[in-house]
Amino acid sequence: MSEYLSDHVRLGDDLTSVVILDQTLLPNRAEYLTLREPEEMFEAIRFLRVRGAPAIGICAGYCLAALAEQRKDLPPAQFGGELHRLSAYLNSSRPTAVNLSWALNRLGNRAHSMSGAAPSAIAAALREEALAIHREDIAMCRAISEFGLTLIKDGDGVLTHCNAGPLATSQYGTALGPLLLGTERGMKFQVFADETRPLLQGARLTSYELNKAGVDVTLICDNMASMVMKNGWINACFVGCDRVAANGDAANKIGTSGVAILARHYGIPFYVLGPTSTIDLKCPTGDDIKIELRDPEEIKSKFYAQPMAPAGVKCYNPAFDVTDHTLISGIVTEKGVCRPPYAQSLAALFH
Amino acid sequence: MSEYLSDHVRLGDDLTSVVILDQTLLPNRAEYLTLREPEEMFEAIRFLRVRGAPAIGICAGYCLAALAEQRKDLPPAQFGGELHRLSAYLNSSRPTAVNLSWALNRLGNRAHSMSGAAPSAIAAALREEALAIHREDIAMCRAISEFGLTLIKDGDGVLTHCNAGPLATSQYGTALGPLLLGTERGMKFQVFADETRPLLQGARLTSYELNKAGVDVTLICDNMASMVMKNGWINACFVGCDRVAANGDAANKIGTSGVAILARHYGIPFYVLGPTSTIDLKCPTGDDIKIELRDPEEIKSKFYAQPMAPAGVKCYNPAFDVTDHTLISGIVTEKGVCRPPYAQSLAALFH
Repeated sequence: MSEYLSDHVRLGDDLTSVVILDQTLLPNRAEYLTLREPEEMFEAIRFLRVRGAPAIGICAGYCLAALAEQRKDLPPAQFGGELHRLSAYLNSSRPTAVNLSWALNRLGNRAHSMSGAAPSAIAAALREEALAIHREDIAMCRAISEFGLTLIKDGDGVLTHCNAGPLATSQYGTALGPLLLGTERGMKFQVFADETRPLLQGARLTSYELNKAGVDVTLICDNMASMVMKNGWINACFVGCDRVAANGDAANKIGTSGVAILARHYGIPFYVLGPTSTIDLKCPTGDDIKIELRDPEEIKSKFYAQPMAPAGVKCYNPAFDVTDHTLISGIVTEKGVCRPPYAQSLAALFH
Repeated sequence: MSEYLSDHVRLGDDLTSVVILDQTLLPNRAEYLTLREPEEMFEAIRFLRVRGAPAIGICAGYCLAALAEQRKDLPPAQFGGELHRLSAYLNSSRPTAVNLSWALNRLGNRAHSMSGAAPSAIAAALREEALAIHREDIAMCRAISEFGLTLIKDGDGVLTHCNAGPLATSQYGTALGPLLLGTERGMKFQVFADETRPLLQGARLTSYELNKAGVDVTLICDNMASMVMKNGWINACFVGCDRVAANGDAANKIGTSGVAILARHYGIPFYVLGPTSTIDLKCPTGDDIKIELRDPEEIKSKFYAQPMAPAGVKCYNPAFDVTDHTLISGIVTEKGVCRPPYAQSLAALFH
């Protein structure tokens, strides 16, 4: 199994713990934590030691499976009650993370379907379910990577924004997947990673992941993307997505829409990569996607040795923006590459 | 005099010192330094305690005038030798700053034209010359501000990038001049200031200056400009310039070209503001402007409590980019607003 599973979130060898790479310490330290107590698991999810919607789902599955294994000698009724309580507790660690509740519900349904079975059998089944969630995510990322790789060729320059790599998902990731898969096959890319202010996911995570995988990566400030494109260094842009509307408008990390506009200006194709689970056909257009506004201190003082703006100055700090579908050359999912008109091509994915 | 002169660079009341606001401590501390020894003056210019080409020129003029006043009782021959030595010493503090040598040469020529005069008379003349440099810069910024103000109206939203305000020049500044002048006249603007990575001049200086002047300013990360424009909040973009080619291509702080492309996409006018001294008719196009590449550590570690990118990752860190003249709605100088075609309108400024 382990050769297929990425190693930043995994079940401990004793089956009663979860081992995660503490992403809050990157890129300065790569430190692994062993989570055994429910409180440790809760804290790790809440404080973003594990982050990225798919990775959170995978982690939550392993956590509940490990806790079940610890309690497999309890009487069945008590075991069931404990499972219920622990699942609700873990689910409260990040209330808005969809993949968290999705994974916990999936394990809960599995347990429910086995009511009457021995706790040890249920614990084993939950472990299987958690591994399946991980395995499916890997397969999905792999498929996205394969489809994405058809859009670039050996030697290409690729610009990416934010982080949609293995750390946010499982092996390969989404936007970074084609680059990692192609590199494994001996292809060479020149990747430019936007640092992605204010939280610097591009600097802290993307450049870390690509560098570790042996990909030629150059870090730039977000405002340097125009010059890099003008220099003729970019053949394609690859970005992830948080939500895609039925018309193809795509919400992703703040700054993504700017990259798309620059790419259009310089005649560079711009691709959005993500699983079909991020496509929301019930959401007609990007105007219907609500954008989270975050703490001004992320801009003014976070990460700095001292504040970089006067205390009295206002900030506008949207976490995401919406890229208009007319700026998107293709949307790459695990089922294939959708092309405009997206109203048709996205709907066709679900038939 | 003082009511016309901005107070961040000025001659000390004793006429033998220069008082500057230490810009390296902004925005956290507004601390004034009194420079009396040549070594203190050298250090202040070298370590950017005073910065911005016009402000450096003004400061250098005052420094040489103050040093001359200190030495006015020397015998004439020795006085002349000292003046020469001190001017060369100050000029070596930032070898590539054109305004530095320009101002020192101007004072040197004035002294040369008075050879034979008493040192005290020469010292007084150098002081007059230094005040004239300052006064002329104020008049130039004032004229740019007046012309710029014709391009916006009360209530407008304006986006700016980097810092071309009073701290870089004298009173008003260039790109910020119309906003400060209009505010003095009771107009209200909503200004959005790009933080301007990697050196954060927008956060540290622009938001500081505008906030202090009572202008409604909102700080954003560079990658948020697209969303702010899409929201319909911006009626015009105002930026400074470091060098303008004969065809209107304009070099300015990295990221400026991206702002211009976004403005074009959203149908927002984009204006470049600067003195005619930045227009270089001997430079045919932006392709002939050499771009300075700076230290990767400015991106990876500067200002941060700890590095934000792995040590092994490469960075590309150009200090400036070139905005294509086709993206520029107007170039605002102290002689008026130039419109396309710039090959003609810029040349006409010099006839």
